[in-house]
Formats: sequence, C-alpha cells, structure tokens
Amino acid sequence: MHRKQTIEINIWGVLMWGDNPIVIQSMTNTPTADIGATTKQIQELVKAGSELVRITVNDDAAAEAVPKIIKNLISLGISTPIVGDFHYNGHILLNKYPEMAESLAKYRINPGNVGKWEKRDDNFKSIIECAIKYQKPVRIGINGWSLDDDLLQMNMNENSKLQNPKSGKEVFVDSMVESALLSVEKAEQYGLPKNRMTISVKMSDIQDMVSSYKLLSSKTDIPLHLGLTEAGGSAKGITASSIALGLLLQEGIGDTIRVSLTPEPGAKRSLEVEVCKYILQTMGIRSFQPLITSCPGCGRTSSDKFQILSKQITDEIDKNYSTWKDKYTNFTTTNIAVMGCIVNGPGEAKNADIGIFLPWSGENPKIPVYVKGEIHKTLDGDDIFEQFMEILIGYFEGEDNK
Amino acid sequence: MHRKQTIEINIWGVLMWGDNPIVIQSMTNTPTADIGATTKQIQELVKAGSELVRITVNDDAAAEAVPKIIKNLISLGISTPIVGDFHYNGHILLNKYPEMAESLAKYRINPGNVGKWEKRDDNFKSIIECAIKYQKPVRIGINGWSLDDDLLQMNMNENSKLQNPKSGKEVFVDSMVESALLSVEKAEQYGLPKNRMTISVKMSDIQDMVSSYKLLSSKTDIPLHLGLTEAGGSAKGITASSIALGLLLQEGIGDTIRVSLTPEPGAKRSLEVEVCKYILQTMGIRSFQPLITSCPGCGRTSSDKFQILSKQITDEIDKNYSTWKDKYTNFTTTNIAVMGCIVNGPGEAKNADIGIFLPWSGENPKIPVYVKGEIHKTLDGDDIFEQFMEILIGYFEGEDNK
Repeated sequence: MHRKQTIEINIWGVLMWGDNPIVIQSMTNTPTADIGATTKQIQELVKAGSELVRITVNDDAAAEAVPKIIKNLISLGISTPIVGDFHYNGHILLNKYPEMAESLAKYRINPGNVGKWEKRDDNFKSIIECAIKYQKPVRIGINGWSLDDDLLQMNMNENSKLQNPKSGKEVFVDSMVESALLSVEKAEQYGLPKNRMTISVKMSDIQDMVSSYKLLSSKTDIPLHLGLTEAGGSAKGITASSIALGLLLQEGIGDTIRVSLTPEPGAKRSLEVEVCKYILQTMGIRSFQPLITSCPGCGRTSSDKFQILSKQITDEIDKNYSTWKDKYTNFTTTNIAVMGCIVNGPGEAKNADIGIFLPWSGENPKIPVYVKGEIHKTLDGDDIFEQFMEILIGYFEGEDNK
Repeated sequence: MHRKQTIEINIWGVLMWGDNPIVIQSMTNTPTADIGATTKQIQELVKAGSELVRITVNDDAAAEAVPKIIKNLISLGISTPIVGDFHYNGHILLNKYPEMAESLAKYRINPGNVGKWEKRDDNFKSIIECAIKYQKPVRIGINGWSLDDDLLQMNMNENSKLQNPKSGKEVFVDSMVESALLSVEKAEQYGLPKNRMTISVKMSDIQDMVSSYKLLSSKTDIPLHLGLTEAGGSAKGITASSIALGLLLQEGIGDTIRVSLTPEPGAKRSLEVEVCKYILQTMGIRSFQPLITSCPGCGRTSSDKFQILSKQITDEIDKNYSTWKDKYTNFTTTNIAVMGCIVNGPGEAKNADIGIFLPWSGENPKIPVYVKGEIHKTLDGDDIFEQFMEILIGYFEGEDNK
C-alpha cells in the first residue's frame, strides 16, 4: 500500500508524517485533577505502547494538575508527548495557566466547541495565539455531533435550494471537511504554520467517517489523526474501529490512530492501545510484538489445551511488552503458532518462527515444538507453558545475545 | 458499495448470492460424535444468528451422529442448514454412511486434503459424485497451509526459472486461486453444476488473503465464502478478521462470512457469530439488532455509570436476540446512544433513536432520556437500567404493537 505523503510534524520528537511509523495514541479517562490516578494511567498506556497520550483539561483544577503530572512522568523517565484536550473554555484556561500551556506537547481544539458566532472566532484565535506563543502544534479535531452547527445549518439550507440536492449524509460529510479546512485556514491567518497542525474528522458511522477522511485527504497534505468516535463496547467497538481504520490505512490514509472503546466495567484502559497495535501489525504496517496464530478449534480438536496455552502466552507477552521489546532482538518480529488442529496444525506450526501443535487429549502426550520449520523439541509433562516460554525466550534473544 | 453479482445458490432455502443478504455462518468445536453437546452448541450458534452451521465429519462415530443431530434440531424447530466438513476421508465416509450424506445440507471439501496424485483425483471425484447423487451443494474450501503441495511446488519451480520471478507471496496467492479454479473445473467435468458450488481461499495473513479473494472474484462468478483462518484469540482475532472481511465486503466481494476466533477458555462459541453481525451492521450492509453508540470516557466523565449501563443493555439485547428480533417491529433498526460525555453526549443522544446521557456523579442525579431527539423522560433512582429497558422495549414495540 502506498502511504499518502503528508507534511512534516514533530511533536516532542515523535514524527507523525510521511513515511515515519504511524503513531499510536490514546486518552486517559481519569479526572485530570487526580494527579496520582492520571499519572498512573498514562504510565499504563505508555507501557502498552501508546506513543502520545491525551488528557482532558476541562477546569481550573485540571489545568493546575497538568504541569505536576508532566513533572511526575519525567521523574519516572517517561517522555511521551502529552496532549491537552480543550473544549468550551480552552481560551480561558490556556491564558490563565501559562505553566500548563507551556508544559503540554500539543493542544487539541474542537472548532465546534469554542463558542458561537463572533465569540467563536475570538476564542479560536486566542487558542491559536497561545499555540504560537508556546510553539505548540495543534490538532483541529472535528467531531460529528459537535460539528459547528451554524455551518451545518447553512449548508443544509443551501443544499435544499439546489435542483438536485445531495443527501443529508453527503452534506454532513462535506460540512465536516469544510469545517476542518476553514479552521486550518483561519489558524494559518492567525500565524500558525501548517507544519504545526494535524486534523481529525471523527464520526461514529463507519461509512460517513471513511468518506470524510477520504475527502479530507484529497484536499490537504496536513497529517491526519484517524478515529471512529464513540465506537462502543469491547467486541462491537473493536470490530467497528478495526474496519474503519483498516479501510483508510489500506488506502495509505492516516498518520496517527486512536481506537475509542467504552471500557467494560473494570477492564484495563490499555485495551485501546493493544487494538491499535493489532490493527497496524496484522495489516503488515508495523511490527510490535509476537502475534499468535491459533486455530478456532472444531470438532476435531479433542482438547482445549491449545486455547489455554494461547491465552497464557498472549497474556505473558502483553505483561512484559515494555521490557521485552527493548531487551530481545527478535521480539518484535517473531511469529508464533499455537495449533490444536490436525488439518492446518502441522502446516501452520512449521511455517511460523516457533510453532507448537497440541492435537491430543491422551495421557502424557508428546507435543512437538517447531523452530523455523524443523522439530526443535518434544514436550511432555504438566508444565508445557513454562517449557514453551523457555524455548520462546531463547528464540527472542536471537544469535546476538547467545 | 456495489455488490459483485454472483450466481444463484440455494442451500435449504438460504439464498447465498447476488443481492441476497450476506449469510453469517459458524462452526462447532464440540466432538460431532457427542450428539448432545453438538446439538446444544448448534442451538447456541443459531440463537446468536448463525444462518448456516458447519460440523466436522472426521470419523465413523461422527458420521453416525450426523443424522441424529439433524433429527434433534428438526424436533427443536431448527431448520438451519448443517454443512459437513470433510478432510482426508470424506470419500470413504460419504459412501459408507448414505444417511449422513443425505441428511447434510452441503459438503465442504478441502482439495489439498483428499490424497496425493492419482488418488487425489479419484477421491475428489468420489465426493463430487456423492454431491450429485444427493443433490448437495459443495464448498471448494482451499486453506493456506493445506494448499495442494504438488501444485505449489510446481508453481514455485516454474517461477524460479522466470527472468523476473514473482515473490514467493505472489506465487502463493496465485496458487491458492489456481487450486480453487482447477477444482471447480474438475467438479464441473464430473457433473456438478456451477450453481451448486461456493469457494473459499482462507489464509491467516490479511494482505495475502485479501489479494487471493480479489483475484478469485475477478475470475469467477461463483459465490464466495470469506474467512481469515486461524485469526487467533479474542481482541487480536476480532481485529484481524474485521479488517480482512471489511476490506473485501467494502469492494462488494463476499456472499457468506465466517469469523474464526480461538475462544478464550470458558468463553461462549457464539462470539464468532456476534462479530459477524457487528461487521455487517456497522458497515451498513445488514441490520440485526440495536447497536449501542457509547463514548470511550475521558477525564470529563466523572462516573463509570454509562460504562456499566452500556454493558447491561448490550448483554440484555444479546440474551434476548433470538426472541426479540421476531417479536418487536423496531428491534433490528433501533439506534441507542449511552453517553457519559458532556462534549459529544447531548448531540449523540439526541441523534440516536433512543439516547441516554449520564454525565453526573452527584447524589440522585436527573438523567435525561431522548427519543428521536426530544426529551422523553428524566430518570432518577437506583434502577436506571430497569427504567431505561422499559422505555427501550416500548420503542421496540413500535406503533403497530401499541
């Protein structure tokens, strides 16, 4: 796939354009004013692989917390860029709290939420002036249901007067893109250079969202931040986000991605980061960690050993991602197959870098482990997981570390 | 999107071609010989929305169980077509167990797994002759790692002699499609009409799989069964399958889909059916059940009430899917928004058919419920879920049922 060539942007050393890796980002859901909880969640997101983290800056307490959170992160050795999310009162907070404005790596503005009519322009200008003063990049973040209502109404009215009016959906998509490009134009007029901007046009409907980004990408070379907004809970949210982002990335559109999932109660926030990694890696765009190929099982697979083993290995890799990725040479590129299927098992196990094949349910079965297509060892006993992990870590270490 | 026009196929009344709805299918993972467990799992899959269910027929015990399972299903009022999955010994079992051969709605053959050289043709012919005798449609189901090795080796050798050889991946993709089309040609020669066939070319790599199906679709008008094989465990498997199927469906390719997930230990098998529904519905292709738009939460959402409510409503809908879809007029098309976000909440809640907006964490908050953009009721108390479900079911019932 051919990546659309966007213009250079550098956010605290994260290069989010052109042929640089597509950047994974995420957002906290802790109250920003709760410095401890927010620091901890940012740590979790970064550990999972988030390369940019956004936090809301919604009131005085949040604004006061921001520099303290960033100091905490620096003392923890975390230099991941932190983006401030502003709605309604960004112009007030950025002017009132210069330390906050200075400490953030980037601002996100939603042009639909900066006020009405004349106030909108003044407020927007005031935020852009802060960005110029503190030399910060800005995301122009348009959102379907907070789209500038005046613009949408005007476009709907004009469309209704046409002889062959477009559908409401088309007008909506056009208005999303128009709102984004008008805001870019204004920001440029106020003095913010184009290479300090990114744009997003998020919506919750896949087809509208994809149409909006395609139209936008055809009209600008500013880097694009992709996201399907309000995607919903786990399986539905993962499905919809994967399709939406997949369709755009396959066409070379998108410089940074976020997956917005409603966390199931008690679930870890970092699932949204893991899904971003799965999207980029299964599409062959970036490689983060060993992905496990495993079969769905059928009536031929007489035990559930491979399901349990597959889950254990996945959990172990997720748990150790942040340390193993730097520690082991082969970590990011190893393909693992965990198969229980007599039909596809041997083929899939031999074609992986490391494959294990557990078709049997009998007593003390002999379980073959393949390395690069050759039988490496035959396992038995109760500690198959531990034995397999030992072989796997040996493989991760590679020749350089032996 | 424009659907590729494939030729007619009718599997026990399920029309799987042209402009008919894209069919959802799934596969059991119980031993087929365990009649009770297999009947029960087929019931679960059908209840979740599977419109075709495949079971493995791998040995004598499985073959003997098949007619009994189908009788069980009929007595339970389930007429969903049951497909037999054959590998290695299909020619033996189909001839030895005529009652099994008669009772199935369709056979799946993997041409890479019917034997070697001359035997392969004889065995394949024998299965096709059974299909003709019992008037059954057949899926020619090619699978990446059980691709006919003789064909692949021959193509790899020929390619290596070229002045500008293709990459190994390209030869692999070409060979997948060639194997499928050669088998179709042979089946036709043996007397099976084209309108009794479907084809699949499953692989575990998204880009190879998408390339194979695109090439195949350009060369045949036989209906295609889409699947990414060995997709892996839950979040990774859902992500990869959604992208792969999404990319093809968006181009109008695919008449039936299966999502192959490695179930997490103890998880329900029907998750693979739910993901199929999410794919088709979020892409705007088919509508099955109310989908919930809900926000990911951020530091502005001061309570997790909306996360819990969103999960409760999703679970309630999944639980009652099979009865509610026939009982309530508006069930399949209702959009629900469960929002906790002050930024996008009111907009998203008003634009859904039914929206609820829970931004507050204070004591006894008043929670607005919108129906078609207007405030319908304000809820408070401890039983928000029950109150909301009552309004929701009233909406599902529609005017006709009032």
